[in-house]
Amino acid sequence: MALIVAKFGGTSVASPDRIKNVARRLVRLKQQGNDVVAVVSAMGKTTDELVGLAAAVSDNPPSREMDRLLSTGEQVSMALLAMAIDKLGYKAMSFTGRQAGISTTGLHKMARIVTVDNVRILDALSEGVIPVVAGFQGIDENGDITTLGRGGSDTTAVAIAWGINADVCEIYSDVDGIYTADPRVAPRARKLSQISYDEMLELSSAGAGVLQSRAVEFARKWKVVIHSRSAFSDEEGTYIKEDSAMETAAVTGIAHDTSEVKVTLRSVPDMNGVAGKVFSALAAKMVSVDMIIQNISEEGFTDISFTCPESDLDKACETLERILPDINAKAIVVDKDIAKISLVGTGMKSSPGVAARAFTVLGDQSINILAISTSPIRLSMVVDQAQTATAVQALHTAFGLDSDSVFEETQLTPEEVAAKMVKGR
Amino acid sequence: MALIVAKFGGTSVASPDRIKNVARRLVRLKQQGNDVVAVVSAMGKTTDELVGLAAAVSDNPPSREMDRLLSTGEQVSMALLAMAIDKLGYKAMSFTGRQAGISTTGLHKMARIVTVDNVRILDALSEGVIPVVAGFQGIDENGDITTLGRGGSDTTAVAIAWGINADVCEIYSDVDGIYTADPRVAPRARKLSQISYDEMLELSSAGAGVLQSRAVEFARKWKVVIHSRSAFSDEEGTYIKEDSAMETAAVTGIAHDTSEVKVTLRSVPDMNGVAGKVFSALAAKMVSVDMIIQNISEEGFTDISFTCPESDLDKACETLERILPDINAKAIVVDKDIAKISLVGTGMKSSPGVAARAFTVLGDQSINILAISTSPIRLSMVVDQAQTATAVQALHTAFGLDSDSVFEETQLTPEEVAAKMVKGR
Repeated sequence: MALIVAKFGGTSVASPDRIKNVARRLVRLKQQGNDVVAVVSAMGKTTDELVGLAAAVSDNPPSREMDRLLSTGEQVSMALLAMAIDKLGYKAMSFTGRQAGISTTGLHKMARIVTVDNVRILDALSEGVIPVVAGFQGIDENGDITTLGRGGSDTTAVAIAWGINADVCEIYSDVDGIYTADPRVAPRARKLSQISYDEMLELSSAGAGVLQSRAVEFARKWKVVIHSRSAFSDEEGTYIKEDSAMETAAVTGIAHDTSEVKVTLRSVPDMNGVAGKVFSALAAKMVSVDMIIQNISEEGFTDISFTCPESDLDKACETLERILPDINAKAIVVDKDIAKISLVGTGMKSSPGVAARAFTVLGDQSINILAISTSPIRLSMVVDQAQTATAVQALHTAFGLDSDSVFEETQLTPEEVAAKMVKGR
Repeated sequence: MALIVAKFGGTSVASPDRIKNVARRLVRLKQQGNDVVAVVSAMGKTTDELVGLAAAVSDNPPSREMDRLLSTGEQVSMALLAMAIDKLGYKAMSFTGRQAGISTTGLHKMARIVTVDNVRILDALSEGVIPVVAGFQGIDENGDITTLGRGGSDTTAVAIAWGINADVCEIYSDVDGIYTADPRVAPRARKLSQISYDEMLELSSAGAGVLQSRAVEFARKWKVVIHSRSAFSDEEGTYIKEDSAMETAAVTGIAHDTSEVKVTLRSVPDMNGVAGKVFSALAAKMVSVDMIIQNISEEGFTDISFTCPESDLDKACETLERILPDINAKAIVVDKDIAKISLVGTGMKSSPGVAARAFTVLGDQSINILAISTSPIRLSMVVDQAQTATAVQALHTAFGLDSDSVFEETQLTPEEVAAKMVKGR
């Protein structure tokens, strides 16, 4: 007997049959005595198809029109899901972002939620209806449709869960929870039964892309309990909520990210202001610089390296080539074959030995650390991409995260794993 | 310098390239100094695809959800058209039915327009914007999306034209106007420069399916001038407006309709109440009976025939078989190979000889008339379907409608024409 928001992503509603599955799942929750509100994304690749249509009409479509175009995707899936629930003999009613009371800023394509007024949803619930809400969209003060940016449906779900004071916001996907590491890379990874908001945010930004960071931030701020679980099984997943343990392990999970590249400026004169020029120019072009490494100066020259998403690489190189004469650097060198390995855990704050231990573990495996960055609850190290699996597995074992069981599908060599990994997942 | 509503159907916006064509056309109208509002249908077969998705989820989808699903089709095309206009350097803004101020009854899937409040459209026009309105949809008093029924975009266009007091409502399609007869059947058909609302309504209901009857009725009631023209040429089409001529020709146009079938009840006892039983039963099952023919009684028995749309035939036969024992008829005979030929003209009221002349013309061609029905401005005759082209051509010539020029593509034999004709067009 709970009040549940259940969010289903594009894969879970990709076909009429999958929509019927989701309907059965919602009805089962209802039969168990729960009140339930569904939030849905657009079916499968619909959003990409709509983006393609827009691109065929204009290379620079106005964002107001883009939002109305994209918002139709979720409106199709919400109507179909409501039909499927109705077909099972239960009452359902679909709600657009507007009808669900999601008011946003007027910044199209990346609107922020301003207020949530779920009176119509609460009315529907009190009449025994299963409300089905279109994710990803809201309405600005002009009454125009806005969208919350890619993946914004998670944020819609959390906002609604807050608005109706739900017990839990269940986020269903093709992943069955949060793991101590990516099981495809670390066969002994364990599913976590719970994780704190802070840890989840660090893991997400370090490359573990199960949940949208923005949704987790919203949940942390407004204390909404998220349950990340599989759309294809009934097993419990992972709860993301406030850390309630008195003491925690030093390391909760290990993330890896192969979507970044390392850029090095060779032989830059070691003078005041050079680094400032480089990173100001990159910031002006909106390049997301992650880590910065400056090597030891030799004879008045130094190398400056940084990492950034591969998708920003072209912008970064153009920018650097433009300022190259100005800073007297000799060359720009790009290394795409890097991986960032991050240890995350709130216990890290009170365990000062974590970094030293991690370096030793990687050293024992003859893995060279190319760069390091830290936050109070995270330690990230850049290594050669080919060593990703070896590094993750060694750290996973060393920090006591190994499960007794082994994922069978991940009995792969580190090379096979590297080949299988999707860049920027 | 005029205020124009321009409506484009699904074929005209079926692809990004066609949408760009429509945008160029609208910009040209604007460059000529006109103010213009566009109304669009869903792209190509989108509506059919959405109907297919719904059918895959439920065999009886709730109509509220069906309306939200279908309304997304027009929302996609309106956004894309606004983008295409913007790309040409002109200001455009899309409007849903709600934003365009189309309020309807709550009868989903076949809502009727209650009020039109175009303040947002007028505001946009005053700022030099080309408003692009989603056809086919409105909003009921609960704030729920409604749709106006198939082809409702014509009605939206006429309603907006009335709401903003436009000079003309241009309806663009793949047909370049209203003809004295279907040029595929009558090679000497002439395009009419204008036609009255009453004549247009009679022609539409007699099978000439260029415009939606409901849109024409709305236009007649509120005195909106419609201009039916081609989306693919600049040539003038046909104006549908109030009859302004002092005197008019007896016959304005000839329509034919091959979508009906004739059903005959053989050897019914010629007793009071039998016809009443038959047609009450058919009415109860929503069979649209068009013409009724009762032959002369012989020895106390008679044949009762009627015509109805082929799509109602199964319902009609089931109904008749059920009551057959009750009325003591011998058999049900169905004739699918019939055509209804209709002469339409407001001048017919003051030309009593039209019917007699039409019968003589068909008699001279050895064409047997199977049934007759009339209205003050229409005379319809049912003939053998194979004789459609012969009948239309002979009547077209006899009533002085022939053009000097001949449609080359229609140099077909009557048999070829019959084979080419689309049932229920």
